[in-house]
Amino acid sequence: MSTSAPRIVAVDTYDIRFPTSRELDGSDAMNPDPDYSAAYVLLRTDADDGLAGHGFAFTIGRGNDVQVAAIDLLRPYLLGLDAAALCADPAALSRTLVGDSQLRWLGPEKGVMHMAIGAVLNAVWDLAAKRAGVPLWKLLADAEPEWLLSQVDFRYLTDALTPADALELLRRGKEGAAGREAVLRERGYPAYTTSPGWLGYDDEKLARLAEQAVADGFAQIKLKVGADRADDVRRLRTARAAVGPGIRIAVDANQRWDVPEAVAWTRALAPFDPYWIEEPTSPDDILGHAEVRRRVAPIKVATGEHVQNRVVFKQLLQAGAIDVLQLDAARVGGVNENLAVLLLAAHYGVPVCPHAGGVGLCELVQHLSMFDYVALSGTTEDRMIEYVDHLHQHFITPVVIRDGHYTAPTAPGFCAELRPESIAAHIHPTGAAWAADAKGLTE
Amino acid sequence: MSTSAPRIVAVDTYDIRFPTSRELDGSDAMNPDPDYSAAYVLLRTDADDGLAGHGFAFTIGRGNDVQVAAIDLLRPYLLGLDAAALCADPAALSRTLVGDSQLRWLGPEKGVMHMAIGAVLNAVWDLAAKRAGVPLWKLLADAEPEWLLSQVDFRYLTDALTPADALELLRRGKEGAAGREAVLRERGYPAYTTSPGWLGYDDEKLARLAEQAVADGFAQIKLKVGADRADDVRRLRTARAAVGPGIRIAVDANQRWDVPEAVAWTRALAPFDPYWIEEPTSPDDILGHAEVRRRVAPIKVATGEHVQNRVVFKQLLQAGAIDVLQLDAARVGGVNENLAVLLLAAHYGVPVCPHAGGVGLCELVQHLSMFDYVALSGTTEDRMIEYVDHLHQHFITPVVIRDGHYTAPTAPGFCAELRPESIAAHIHPTGAAWAADAKGLTE
Repeated sequence: MSTSAPRIVAVDTYDIRFPTSRELDGSDAMNPDPDYSAAYVLLRTDADDGLAGHGFAFTIGRGNDVQVAAIDLLRPYLLGLDAAALCADPAALSRTLVGDSQLRWLGPEKGVMHMAIGAVLNAVWDLAAKRAGVPLWKLLADAEPEWLLSQVDFRYLTDALTPADALELLRRGKEGAAGREAVLRERGYPAYTTSPGWLGYDDEKLARLAEQAVADGFAQIKLKVGADRADDVRRLRTARAAVGPGIRIAVDANQRWDVPEAVAWTRALAPFDPYWIEEPTSPDDILGHAEVRRRVAPIKVATGEHVQNRVVFKQLLQAGAIDVLQLDAARVGGVNENLAVLLLAAHYGVPVCPHAGGVGLCELVQHLSMFDYVALSGTTEDRMIEYVDHLHQHFITPVVIRDGHYTAPTAPGFCAELRPESIAAHIHPTGAAWAADAKGLTE
Repeated sequence: MSTSAPRIVAVDTYDIRFPTSRELDGSDAMNPDPDYSAAYVLLRTDADDGLAGHGFAFTIGRGNDVQVAAIDLLRPYLLGLDAAALCADPAALSRTLVGDSQLRWLGPEKGVMHMAIGAVLNAVWDLAAKRAGVPLWKLLADAEPEWLLSQVDFRYLTDALTPADALELLRRGKEGAAGREAVLRERGYPAYTTSPGWLGYDDEKLARLAEQAVADGFAQIKLKVGADRADDVRRLRTARAAVGPGIRIAVDANQRWDVPEAVAWTRALAPFDPYWIEEPTSPDDILGHAEVRRRVAPIKVATGEHVQNRVVFKQLLQAGAIDVLQLDAARVGGVNENLAVLLLAAHYGVPVCPHAGGVGLCELVQHLSMFDYVALSGTTEDRMIEYVDHLHQHFITPVVIRDGHYTAPTAPGFCAELRPESIAAHIHPTGAAWAADAKGLTE
């Protein structure tokens, strides 16, 4: 314990991987064999409160070590920082990291380096919420509009959204917030489930899980598509028969198509009333998404889990390219950049339905959507958080789904903290989960 | 020496950095203190010809080690490959690396992971040209259109450019190629120089170097702008006075501005007749560039050195966002992806003026422009390659500038090969160039 102000004294990183490819959980047309992984970072202070900030970048296996190396590169920027000052203004660290000119060359603001910055910033927000003794959604919902504004980097946004626009949105978001918070605590936030629809599952398993999803209270399910058109028609027919006409079925192509193919394939699925087509083409193709949207309406277009930063989200909104914005907690520059994304979405009136699943993404994004409901957009209409029933048992405060809704977290922090024994078992390649695998492969 | 077919037997990597920040060479509004660096890769075979493939990702210092780690990740995909088969079809390796689903998550096709793939592919093309005994531009210019077509990944391009379109362009490019090759060998390819215009240089040095550039035969120079508007007006006035009205002056903001500021600032420089405004805003902002272009015409808009891949270039062209396309040899997925970019530019009739400078970028891009002139666009009208007079002495076959033109290389390969003693001296942090630095700092 230190007698002076607590400082960041350690930045521990871990290459954590789960061997999910063994069961084809998470299989889709682009990602046949993911091993869900976390490039994990833990910020320790010398305070006597025992609190640490946890964050991670999500990857799907190979390269997770490079992602960890990118986080390691940020250690010198963190060590020695005053913990209270850091938590009072995470944007200062964001500016330092995003603005480092030499590191910026490696992006800018995209890919491995940007995800590393996002992991570190999310760890800071976890620490900030823990120190404040509240869940992150509550910290954000209770914050003053002027302070929230100070946490957003408006660079490259002002042709679409000015700080004055944003302040107005945040002030309006405060109206009625207490009432919405009460509703949130009682009912939770709507969820949809992707668990039935992985491409590696057979039709029987798909139908059974789809029926189960409806019985569990979900109003929407999602199916992976894009590998084989005839299979997709059959699978969507199967799912529609299983859930009936009143349940929304989203379909997700995981970037498999060029624009013309996306239009033709989506139209072929139209008879089974898909609610949205997700990632029909490259996440970089703003104009392509806009073209697909024009040509497949009234089927909605959704994207975002691979959108690299706020500049691309801005353009997707400016171009009228999406009906549904799927932010991801761990791909962009942390909570700070996601505040910008939520503000952009609110400004354009486009609903946010976050991407989740993977490792811990459900745990993180719930906080962003709940803040948005209580104190920004003020509505859950046409809004849902993705839910996938994988790997939650490894978290200290896993999500709780009740009657198709995410229950509002009450524990302080960002729900990002893995159990110590889960970390130990899944360190790659030496942890028990992988040592056993290697043994099995060589014997 | 092996008696069977030669294979790739080693993938050596080096973290090479040059302490360029000491002299403010390369300083601009976004990058005040770059240490030009190469995450360098060397592919060795067991052939008895002694030939190796050299490639690199260019960075500006910190993070070069992470860039090297990303290249290291690709080693298992390379070791054991048949060298002849690899060089006969680099696209097969490109598909393997770009298509690896787990690695793809780290981009996709952008940032650290994509630059690593580009470095490796460029090394393969260097090896291929060396084995063929010709400079790379000649290998490409002599190749059959069908084979060149097979080297291009059309995924996400077909709404703008189909393989049939591209084949037609390549076939037309063959017409008169022999005559253009003769012209190229005699006159070289036009260059412009950025050497006078670094932001860290004072007005006297700017004027002196600008006059020298004209005396050296350059028809265009470039100035860095974007830090201070009054300074920029004064510097551009100084440069215009130095070179007179007949010389083009490009200005380069290195992404400093939002859209409204880009328009206002560029208009403020208009009295001094700037030829193009380069990187006025985020390289990700396609719609922003289009808006700037509409509002600053007839001043041209140029961008590309930070454009992450062919999908963004496609949209810049579709949106009418640029007058000048500045491809970079080491940011996208190597020669294969740059073939796609050259085809897109030719299809839209937009001139390519490659980004160069840094470490070895001049050495690489000359091959791409020369191929384009001889066998694709067939013209050098409004086309120039950037030239910066840094670090060429470290290369085995440095560029040769004569009367404002790049001389056509005659040595086999991609001119990517650093001198062994330069590699040894600049390995970070143990090489002599850095050991001396560390000593100076600590004494």
